[in-house]
Amino acid sequence: MTSQAPGSPPHSIVVLAGGVGGAKYLLGVRRWAQQHGAEVTAIVNTGDDATMHGLRVCPDLDSVMYTLAGTHDPERGWGQVGESWVVGEELAEYGAGSTWFSLGDKDIATHLVRTQMLDAGYPLSDVTAALCTRWPIGVRLLPMSDQRVETHAIAEVPAQDGPPVQRALHFQEWWVRYRAQLPTEGFVQVGLEHARPGPGVLEAIGEADLVLVAPSNPVVSIGTILGLQAIRDAVRATDAPVVGTAPLIGGSPLRGMADTCLRIVGVEPTALAVGAHYGARSGDGVLDGWLVAPGDGGSIEGVEVAEAPLLMSDPDATAAMVDAAVRLAGLADG
Amino acid sequence: MTSQAPGSPPHSIVVLAGGVGGAKYLLGVRRWAQQHGAEVTAIVNTGDDATMHGLRVCPDLDSVMYTLAGTHDPERGWGQVGESWVVGEELAEYGAGSTWFSLGDKDIATHLVRTQMLDAGYPLSDVTAALCTRWPIGVRLLPMSDQRVETHAIAEVPAQDGPPVQRALHFQEWWVRYRAQLPTEGFVQVGLEHARPGPGVLEAIGEADLVLVAPSNPVVSIGTILGLQAIRDAVRATDAPVVGTAPLIGGSPLRGMADTCLRIVGVEPTALAVGAHYGARSGDGVLDGWLVAPGDGGSIEGVEVAEAPLLMSDPDATAAMVDAAVRLAGLADG
Repeated sequence: MTSQAPGSPPHSIVVLAGGVGGAKYLLGVRRWAQQHGAEVTAIVNTGDDATMHGLRVCPDLDSVMYTLAGTHDPERGWGQVGESWVVGEELAEYGAGSTWFSLGDKDIATHLVRTQMLDAGYPLSDVTAALCTRWPIGVRLLPMSDQRVETHAIAEVPAQDGPPVQRALHFQEWWVRYRAQLPTEGFVQVGLEHARPGPGVLEAIGEADLVLVAPSNPVVSIGTILGLQAIRDAVRATDAPVVGTAPLIGGSPLRGMADTCLRIVGVEPTALAVGAHYGARSGDGVLDGWLVAPGDGGSIEGVEVAEAPLLMSDPDATAAMVDAAVRLAGLADG
Repeated sequence: MTSQAPGSPPHSIVVLAGGVGGAKYLLGVRRWAQQHGAEVTAIVNTGDDATMHGLRVCPDLDSVMYTLAGTHDPERGWGQVGESWVVGEELAEYGAGSTWFSLGDKDIATHLVRTQMLDAGYPLSDVTAALCTRWPIGVRLLPMSDQRVETHAIAEVPAQDGPPVQRALHFQEWWVRYRAQLPTEGFVQVGLEHARPGPGVLEAIGEADLVLVAPSNPVVSIGTILGLQAIRDAVRATDAPVVGTAPLIGGSPLRGMADTCLRIVGVEPTALAVGAHYGARSGDGVLDGWLVAPGDGGSIEGVEVAEAPLLMSDPDATAAMVDAAVRLAGLADG
């Protein structure tokens, strides 16, 4: 299942990733890559992107950038450490909307640079590269697309007067404002069918020695990336083995609300069901291997399933997960 | 020189004003108006407005709003009290330009609300009114125009290599970055000839009982407002007396660099020369009366000149200046 000789560690690793969970996973991938002289390209979901107070916010790209830069807040789980909230408090004093979405002062500087560059005509991929030059994050960060794709939930939203009304609301509003607690029929990715993969995305997948699917939300993070047909086709066609890591342990998500999103799209929130949902490359899916937590094992047609500890407690523990994925792909030394 | 019976205090006062000096003057006008049951409309210069980091910044409108709201920083002289600088420091870390222009965090919230409303299609006058609803500032604040007018200096600017080059640079860059210290040929107000007075501006001047010219910069603040031909015509045509207050005491500006700007346009930096520069309404100018500091008196053809203490040390002292202007206009009680 690889173009390399079996037993030859990968030099070039591509990771499909969402935000906070993907960022944490990438800390481990970077650690593993540093130990093995490999290069890492992260292809990151942009479906959560939103415009708040006129600022373009890319939650997943920023979570990955801040985390790899070491400036993220590990306590809060998102945003930067030592963050202040003066601008947001002032916006609230003016009665400016979206008070459910907190923007830190440091974070706002990121969004101001991004928004100004986008307004000047630079594509998101260039903006992302420019922002990353501030920190040597050690990973090539690629937005899945330069085109605007925005995930919306079709949900029953509380109304001021009368019963709830069904409407499409931006994923951020559904996730942050309503804590994913609304009766929800499904998700739509506005703009997905017309979006093209960002520069370098298809090349990276095609030239990779190993493609990893991070333990990110399988529906709204990985599902959105793979919802780009050209990316899905490239993952299915690459000579590299494709190994995913389950985002659930014993039915509970590693973080976030993956279980909620899975139930909404009719997938049982278990590691095996998610692996089957992704499916085998030998069938019409995207996986060769699937890593699950000890005790979560079983069989998925066409997919090699292996068990390994999946708690990303620190970069070394996460690097061990990556090592297990490399072994599962048949790319380990010796 | 008034439509009112002489000796009847004005009910409706219009003030032409720039930024920090105009704001301080308006504190006194508001004090006087509160004591006499009058209403105040400020017509504020927008020629200093600039776009910084994609944010629309209106220095004079904001100075007036913050000062009348009591949230200005009297020590620094501009911006808000208790301001923090996190966003600006982060922008500098990203290498984003215009580091010579400091934007405070609180201030950025103002600019975000403004920029978003402008982008949504609201005119600056509506945006200004919306921002002011946060504070009851007790003065109706009108931008001189909803159209973009930007003052530029034609100056010798230092070049990276070789000798300085003459170019037009935005007034903010000339003023803040170069401290008005460049060899300067003159000023141009880009957009001025096509700009129309903002909603309510001509009506306010036409219906006023008294028009006051604040001791603001006569060239780049008052000069820009009166550079709008329709405003100049309205000031010349109104039934109300027009009284100005000198921005210089014994040849020194009350604040700012009015003397520098005056020299550039060939006007001697003295109270009398500025009064003559504004000129008499009976001629082709805009003044009926001109208030100067003790010892700065003299005669200007067609203009009544009076002396009064002009140090705006507190709102009561400034209200006394306003009272002197009212007396000079022949509108004092009894």
